[in-house]
Amino acid sequence: HSIGGTNKIGSMHLLPVLTPYPTKNWLQPKRYKAHLMGTQYVYDFPELFRQAIQNSWTDAVKQHPTMASKQPPVGECIDFMELVLDDQDNLAEVSREPGTNTCGMVGWLINARTPEYPRGRKFVVVANDITYNIGSFGPKEDNFFFKCTELARKLGIPRIYLSANSGARLGLANELMPHFKVAWNDSEKPEAGFKYLYLDDETKRRFENEVITEEVTEDGEKRHKIVTIVGREDGLGVECLRGSGLIAGATSRAYNDIFTCTLVTCRSVGIGAYLVRLGQRAVQIEGQPIILTGAPALNNLLGREVYTSNLQLGGTQIMYRNGVSHLTANDDFAGVSQIVKWMSFIPDKRNNPVPISPSVDDWDRDVVYTPPQRQAYDVRWMIAGKEDEDGFQPGLFDKDSFVETLGGWARTVVVGRARLGGIPMGVIAVENRSVENVTPADPANPDSIEQVVNEAGGVWYPNSAFKTAQAINDFNNGEQLPLMILANWRGFSGGQRDMYNEVLKYGSFIVDALVKFEQPVFIYIPPFGELRGGSWVVVDPTINPTAMEMYADVEARGGVLEPEGIIGIKYRKDKQLETMARLDPVYSSLKKQMAKEGLSKEEKDAIKQQMTEREQQLLPVYAQISLQYADLHDRAGRMKAKGVIREVLEWREARRFFYWRARRRLNEEYILRRIASATSPAGIHGKGAPTASGTALARSRHLHLLEAWSGIPNFDTNDRDVAVWYEEHRKLVSEKIEALKNEAIAGEVRELVRAA
Amino acid sequence: HSIGGTNKIGSMHLLPVLTPYPTKNWLQPKRYKAHLMGTQYVYDFPELFRQAIQNSWTDAVKQHPTMASKQPPVGECIDFMELVLDDQDNLAEVSREPGTNTCGMVGWLINARTPEYPRGRKFVVVANDITYNIGSFGPKEDNFFFKCTELARKLGIPRIYLSANSGARLGLANELMPHFKVAWNDSEKPEAGFKYLYLDDETKRRFENEVITEEVTEDGEKRHKIVTIVGREDGLGVECLRGSGLIAGATSRAYNDIFTCTLVTCRSVGIGAYLVRLGQRAVQIEGQPIILTGAPALNNLLGREVYTSNLQLGGTQIMYRNGVSHLTANDDFAGVSQIVKWMSFIPDKRNNPVPISPSVDDWDRDVVYTPPQRQAYDVRWMIAGKEDEDGFQPGLFDKDSFVETLGGWARTVVVGRARLGGIPMGVIAVENRSVENVTPADPANPDSIEQVVNEAGGVWYPNSAFKTAQAINDFNNGEQLPLMILANWRGFSGGQRDMYNEVLKYGSFIVDALVKFEQPVFIYIPPFGELRGGSWVVVDPTINPTAMEMYADVEARGGVLEPEGIIGIKYRKDKQLETMARLDPVYSSLKKQMAKEGLSKEEKDAIKQQMTEREQQLLPVYAQISLQYADLHDRAGRMKAKGVIREVLEWREARRFFYWRARRRLNEEYILRRIASATSPAGIHGKGAPTASGTALARSRHLHLLEAWSGIPNFDTNDRDVAVWYEEHRKLVSEKIEALKNEAIAGEVRELVRAA
Repeated sequence: HSIGGTNKIGSMHLLPVLTPYPTKNWLQPKRYKAHLMGTQYVYDFPELFRQAIQNSWTDAVKQHPTMASKQPPVGECIDFMELVLDDQDNLAEVSREPGTNTCGMVGWLINARTPEYPRGRKFVVVANDITYNIGSFGPKEDNFFFKCTELARKLGIPRIYLSANSGARLGLANELMPHFKVAWNDSEKPEAGFKYLYLDDETKRRFENEVITEEVTEDGEKRHKIVTIVGREDGLGVECLRGSGLIAGATSRAYNDIFTCTLVTCRSVGIGAYLVRLGQRAVQIEGQPIILTGAPALNNLLGREVYTSNLQLGGTQIMYRNGVSHLTANDDFAGVSQIVKWMSFIPDKRNNPVPISPSVDDWDRDVVYTPPQRQAYDVRWMIAGKEDEDGFQPGLFDKDSFVETLGGWARTVVVGRARLGGIPMGVIAVENRSVENVTPADPANPDSIEQVVNEAGGVWYPNSAFKTAQAINDFNNGEQLPLMILANWRGFSGGQRDMYNEVLKYGSFIVDALVKFEQPVFIYIPPFGELRGGSWVVVDPTINPTAMEMYADVEARGGVLEPEGIIGIKYRKDKQLETMARLDPVYSSLKKQMAKEGLSKEEKDAIKQQMTEREQQLLPVYAQISLQYADLHDRAGRMKAKGVIREVLEWREARRFFYWRARRRLNEEYILRRIASATSPAGIHGKGAPTASGTALARSRHLHLLEAWSGIPNFDTNDRDVAVWYEEHRKLVSEKIEALKNEAIAGEVRELVRAA
Repeated sequence: HSIGGTNKIGSMHLLPVLTPYPTKNWLQPKRYKAHLMGTQYVYDFPELFRQAIQNSWTDAVKQHPTMASKQPPVGECIDFMELVLDDQDNLAEVSREPGTNTCGMVGWLINARTPEYPRGRKFVVVANDITYNIGSFGPKEDNFFFKCTELARKLGIPRIYLSANSGARLGLANELMPHFKVAWNDSEKPEAGFKYLYLDDETKRRFENEVITEEVTEDGEKRHKIVTIVGREDGLGVECLRGSGLIAGATSRAYNDIFTCTLVTCRSVGIGAYLVRLGQRAVQIEGQPIILTGAPALNNLLGREVYTSNLQLGGTQIMYRNGVSHLTANDDFAGVSQIVKWMSFIPDKRNNPVPISPSVDDWDRDVVYTPPQRQAYDVRWMIAGKEDEDGFQPGLFDKDSFVETLGGWARTVVVGRARLGGIPMGVIAVENRSVENVTPADPANPDSIEQVVNEAGGVWYPNSAFKTAQAINDFNNGEQLPLMILANWRGFSGGQRDMYNEVLKYGSFIVDALVKFEQPVFIYIPPFGELRGGSWVVVDPTINPTAMEMYADVEARGGVLEPEGIIGIKYRKDKQLETMARLDPVYSSLKKQMAKEGLSKEEKDAIKQQMTEREQQLLPVYAQISLQYADLHDRAGRMKAKGVIREVLEWREARRFFYWRARRRLNEEYILRRIASATSPAGIHGKGAPTASGTALARSRHLHLLEAWSGIPNFDTNDRDVAVWYEEHRKLVSEKIEALKNEAIAGEVRELVRAA
């Protein structure tokens, strides 16, 4: 029918031929207003998501030409419906004109066909409209934000918040301003002050609901002394704070539940700033501050012009460097692209498996880049590979897959996400170089100066321990990623400064975070890496044995203290001399001579002299021997013999090993979760997702079931065969789980009848 | 039979009459050893508990003579059994001689008859024996500690840890030291260094299991090159770290589950320090440090004598001031007494009601001490009353019941526990005076100086927000106390320093903590107190509506900004002049003259001049009027009208109100929990305690049930009648719940049969 070769209906359909093309849309003034504030008009954001996802397809097809067949037609990678509250105060999906919003908060349910989910993944976007009441939060906005958040939680899908606002709405009852009267101390001399504000009888009747008064009679006149102004408009004060509390609580819950992420696309003030933090993951656009109180208000409070800009308070140089913002971007499109990339690592819905993308980087290859011994290097090379004059030396994870987050904060720890043969994982690794930590001078305190603290590599400080725990929580909550920790720590910094700065609290955060982790965690002490004392304790797999397993490289070390420390206690000079007496014929014979009876003092002195000379000559070597002796206790072989690690690994082979191990564990955890839910009554009733593991006992029983079903020999270690078996026998496994479920239900009924 | 008038069997029973009294017990050497380190011998601690509980009876009987009838005979307020691992590695309760322990960790299950629980409450005490291997943690100690912790969790009772240790155990394989050989570079010149250590054939055979070797042949000699030393003894290295991880994880879980508290009775090192923090509540004895690395080791690392004592690193002046230690004590007995007092606030078992003790301080009295307006005062007077020349002015809580904790840290917030008519509660209040926060100079950094920061009253800083969240978590986890927050905050400090110091993160901690709270929370804005902006948001009851409710004093204020701030935006000079034109006849007539047409420039200037004069004269008053106008929006009346608070209260009456409100809510929550558990299948199977509330919907349905059962009019607000009804109709309520349960089971069975 159509001359364009398509039967899609265009925007000019059925209009007279003479209808002009719209040249300037009525949204332009709002666009202009938003652009002036440094952000996009809120209704233009879905288009940015479309373009970002379009780009991710282009990249994916470039790497995997076979994916082209799955790519949606250009422009059709997303569709979305606007979320609008209906008259029952429920969210409805409607398609309406951009800009027809009646409050300062808008939202969409977006269905995106991404390279990971070509059939579509859904997510909720909720956004301030900064052109509506400067994006302030009133009761309507709060309620809408709350409903969008609850919808995302109900569906178990990501919730993206685009933050551009001015904090809680405030106002005065304008309707009363032209009417109130003042009870003067002396009505002839108003400059002598006043007693109270009041309304006369008529005005009081008119504003019956807007004001609370007390009747007083003064000079024979009946007056309504104002006790409280309520005001007609909803959204003048405390009601906005109540709404803010509502969404603060909802966002705190959502972070535990689903993927929450905020794009700070314009200034984010007060409750806006708190929503950024309560949702935890944040991408901040350069030049857009996250603040609690604006610079002018602070200057007023301080009584002088301390701050010249809000960016001094909450720009990226503050918020990226203290870990409130995980990433920064130069513009909104870059920010949206980062969020789209972030989502590519995580499951489409809560408790679904992570998306495993086809990888150009084969699992079956060596890890080529190897860290040097006793030499500084960039640990990112171990993760992502190293490009140098000799070409590219691949690292443990897929080439170009590593995305670092929180990079501005606590730089002695490196955290991010990467893929291993296409499997998305959280990664935590340790900077082994010294890092300068700069605390800026405080403009409000003229005595303060910039402080530079050197933080050694391989040591946990309060900030890097906090960062480690933050990353673990981020991976676990909402992202549900497995985790790789390349553990290379000498310990926690225990000097006075760091003890005072609560290193114990932040170190404990790591334990608290690992205790709650529900996906597989692999702790790997890398080649020439070491794990000592306290830093071993907080990542030991017994903290959460169903999730965590530990490995050590054949070239790794682990122990309570470093050899230098331990020989200072257990192999001191006296013992070294004993060893010398045993092994050195010269010293030994001198010692025997010395022990002879009947030596004269001169003879004794001479022998003693010779002994001292020999000691001086050989002690450096025997100190080395004792160090070596101590060091032999710290080898991976001992860890394996003592059962504290699962395997000794070789770095070159680590990729092959972890690829199949992770693939097996992910499949296995998913199946175990289904078994646990099928066999526990709570699961049957769909109440609350059971934890990854259920009780340890049930888990081990279920694992034995899987072993029996698959019949694979060396079930514990044969990761590849087991993983493949799981994947090829999904139907069989499902049937068996169904049978278990029926059995469990029958048992349930018996038990309930007995209880009744 | 006995001449002592008792038939108890004494220690000399059946011994020959000539048996001497023991003069010096065989434990004396161990006692002496412990005393030298500054602590008691571990087996003497139960006696300290006995004495502390004895004293609490003496106090209780002094206050309530009627309690004397319940007091156990002197010396019989506690009995205890030692916990010992049997041959199946299970804990058994045995009565054995003190000092017969075979590892460095001992424990007891103590049954204490306290004034709150005259029939007995149980708790587990686990303690390092510092006289055994200097209290180090080896695999046996770790395992025992783990079992004790798990026992306390299983029983849902408090776990007290007495910490006195030297961190994880370490050692070298002594058995190999006299046997290994060295492969020299040049056997004639040992000073030229060595290649490796090895064993000869015979020694290798002897130490088959202690060492991992590689066979090499050198100079025709078969050698076993040592690759790894495992050692015979269990407890030389990584295995101790694994055990440390085990108990770290268990302690982290226990804090969420039961009352955990540590007495730092001697130095606590490494894992010992982490256990202190992971159990969170800590009482530190003066002079006993909590450290990660000892001062000598740090000096070695730094290459100079920086620290002279471990106390510089982790003494009370560090750990009490940064909130790791909640309380300090001068000696072990004082410390034990504090823990006994702490336990008097909390339920004997998880999910039991809090212990309500008879109170000398009647609920039915006025709150006399009233804070002054616009004047500094000590907020502790509001909580506990004020003693001054005019006598005692009682506060909100029972006289002498308030115990402040975390008092050395972040002193702009005051937290602790107190009783209200005998009901134990957590209390959080706000310091309204300025406080000096002193950060000590860092001995390791010669450039650093002591830093003094002034923290204003009524403002949340990063440290005080963290402290607030810490207190909320402490009250909720294991203590299960209801909570009173006397909320008087102007906001969060939003200057550059505090934004950089992550105030947003710590503020968010408060929301995260309140979201999880399971007992009633009362937020009360006190007289002349105010709650603004962000500080309102993080304590608004919508964060957790089933637990939280909010009140404001009739003299309290609340709003987004203070009036000064809001008139700067919404009632500026131009609007003030409008008001002046409306209300001031002089200014109004001038303005009218000005508006007349046909005035000459001189006339205009003259009028303008007069207007300006009038403006200057009156603007200060009109600024006051506008302030008053804005302030009228911030009244409790508006909060009530907007439904953001539950009631407007008067301070004088607050004690009567909250006493019955708390008593009703506590009873109600306990009943609601039972109903929720009876009507949910998970409850039937005893899997996991249901949350305090269940879903909001079920909760409201259950509340309606209670209303119908009781038939009390004004059920929502008639707290006293409802509380009394609950208490007087326990049997009826139980029967009704039983009926609900049977009904639920029947429904369950139907549903399961259908599902099958």
